[in-house]
Amino acid sequence: MSNATTIAVVGATGAVGIEILRVLEQREFPHGAIRLLASPRSAGKTLRYRGAEVAIEPLVDGWHRGVNLALMSAGSGPSKQFAKAAVAAGVNVVDNSSAFRADPECHLIVPEVNGATLPRGSGAVLAAVPNCSAIIMLVALNPLREAFGVRHINVSTYQAASGAGAQAMEELRTQSREALEGRDPLAWTRSVFNEPYAFNLFSHNAGIDAETGYNGEELKMISESRRIWDDPALLVSPTCVRVPTMRAHAESITVTLGRAATEREVRTALERGASVRLVDDRASNGFPTPLKAQGGDEVLVGRVRADIARIHELHGPGAVVTEQTPCDRWSLFVAGDQLRTGAALTAVKIAELMVGSQIDRGVLFPPITTRPAS
Amino acid sequence: MSNATTIAVVGATGAVGIEILRVLEQREFPHGAIRLLASPRSAGKTLRYRGAEVAIEPLVDGWHRGVNLALMSAGSGPSKQFAKAAVAAGVNVVDNSSAFRADPECHLIVPEVNGATLPRGSGAVLAAVPNCSAIIMLVALNPLREAFGVRHINVSTYQAASGAGAQAMEELRTQSREALEGRDPLAWTRSVFNEPYAFNLFSHNAGIDAETGYNGEELKMISESRRIWDDPALLVSPTCVRVPTMRAHAESITVTLGRAATEREVRTALERGASVRLVDDRASNGFPTPLKAQGGDEVLVGRVRADIARIHELHGPGAVVTEQTPCDRWSLFVAGDQLRTGAALTAVKIAELMVGSQIDRGVLFPPITTRPAS
Repeated sequence: MSNATTIAVVGATGAVGIEILRVLEQREFPHGAIRLLASPRSAGKTLRYRGAEVAIEPLVDGWHRGVNLALMSAGSGPSKQFAKAAVAAGVNVVDNSSAFRADPECHLIVPEVNGATLPRGSGAVLAAVPNCSAIIMLVALNPLREAFGVRHINVSTYQAASGAGAQAMEELRTQSREALEGRDPLAWTRSVFNEPYAFNLFSHNAGIDAETGYNGEELKMISESRRIWDDPALLVSPTCVRVPTMRAHAESITVTLGRAATEREVRTALERGASVRLVDDRASNGFPTPLKAQGGDEVLVGRVRADIARIHELHGPGAVVTEQTPCDRWSLFVAGDQLRTGAALTAVKIAELMVGSQIDRGVLFPPITTRPAS
Repeated sequence: MSNATTIAVVGATGAVGIEILRVLEQREFPHGAIRLLASPRSAGKTLRYRGAEVAIEPLVDGWHRGVNLALMSAGSGPSKQFAKAAVAAGVNVVDNSSAFRADPECHLIVPEVNGATLPRGSGAVLAAVPNCSAIIMLVALNPLREAFGVRHINVSTYQAASGAGAQAMEELRTQSREALEGRDPLAWTRSVFNEPYAFNLFSHNAGIDAETGYNGEELKMISESRRIWDDPALLVSPTCVRVPTMRAHAESITVTLGRAATEREVRTALERGASVRLVDDRASNGFPTPLKAQGGDEVLVGRVRADIARIHELHGPGAVVTEQTPCDRWSLFVAGDQLRTGAALTAVKIAELMVGSQIDRGVLFPPITTRPAS
């Protein structure tokens, strides 16, 4: 494939689309021609890619002719309209929307976690990039699952503006300026979110399921984690919150393992985790933050500690924990770039699996046999 | 007491001190003279109170002569230096610092929770305002504890700048301006926090206990909750995080009750809670936010829902929850004004208990017999 492969980036002008172009450049993704597609209102504009200006074409029927692999991030509507026809015509599609994540014909992939389940060499494939908060959580916890098993996850998120797109990031900037000028929140410019955003935070804006009281983002974290880990009995207690940060999500996680482990065992497992970096300096209070995660390819993991309530429950309310105390419940604080790990980087890594180029310099998976161009 | 009572506000120029003056005005706290004290560098300045300019005196030995009741919020150092001598001299002291919160001679009071334990009519008393995050959590959960018991609390905080004082609020404003001007985070003005704060968040800046990995703020939430609820076996799993909001904390809480309760029972209990307001409109996505809590006297409680993981654990991974499904684990999202509920308002309510004026128009406690001036 590689040099003969024509790739398409659909939704190229969006926050994720622009990041996909950056990641394709940075990782020297092997391809021939590239085509950039967006809604008709962006047609005629150009975007710079690998030193050249590439014209943006309108996304219309027949867009996929001549394309071998498409990275779609134009939202659920366009994905529903265009993705399956493209796959039927032989195009490998990596979809960033939530349109097909529960679809049995679609492969829901976090390369570091279940990349090996993506079919190879058997025709065009539809794969979906999971929900950004789910990806970041699963990349962080996957090494613990592999070493000890995972029974239950309690997670509270601190989600950045970028998850709602470039317009939401602009809304945060604009409102912050207005707030600093002393304007009343009622007079702030508002187009994306119902709640004022600057110097504020709010329960995730996804709609609420009337029966359970959980919002759509939280339900995705449950169902997608179960699907990716192929564990329908996995227990997840999520609370998703939007905070006024720009483009990296953070998550406060308490995880119940399948068996008790010591601190050394937990740290060793995390240190070996694919795309995980331990940032956990207790002495200097150096832990994961959105700014540290921003622009990076790894999920930062820190505040690694045995859950003190579990220690107290097991050994008494005044019990002291040491590095040797085994515990089956652990707390972590993690951060990952929403636009990269949570979207563009994961999409490109899935595409790398599809075209058979190595991921992460061969660390994650053994080299894959290159498939002929479809 | 009332009109004969001379009160002192120590640390009057700080963020909490200024809020104490506002609360004293708003609640028409009964007193005679008022004296404002602060560090010598503020001496000579004045602050407006009840329509008059009041001169600020320097906090020096002997400051308490003639004072009947002092509200201290000058930090742990001055409290340690001055509070106990004042109590020994017959002054009722309400201390906002963490200096005496574990001291058996001091009464750790959240008026809505354990106000009845404050001794009355038996000489001068030293009382401490608990940690702000603990107050907000306990006010929200106390009605559930009274109705069903509480065994375990998992809490992740979203803490505002004000918890670190007026300078931290200014640092957030200044850095936000610098960020919006496009300055690199490394060049932002930094004096309070090690981590960049604008459009960022970070694990709470309190020092980390090397043994447990918990920070000082989290350990306070554990020990103070146990003391206030008089429940040494209470289990608390806290993660404290500083977010770029101004003056109201939010908390994501999962609470394990002493017995299972239905949604109606839980909501009814919360609706009756002292200083609790349910803000929980699933249809419009209307839930507690820092901005909604800001300037108010109540802890806002919303996102009330049976913990879906517990429902799945009890009834199977696809179980559906209804209003009638009993559950012993519940999730909530709460917000409370850090400067008011978390500090100044609680301090003044404790002072009201001391002087015997009614709290919350008599809703919280039956009228208290007025004590003679000490």
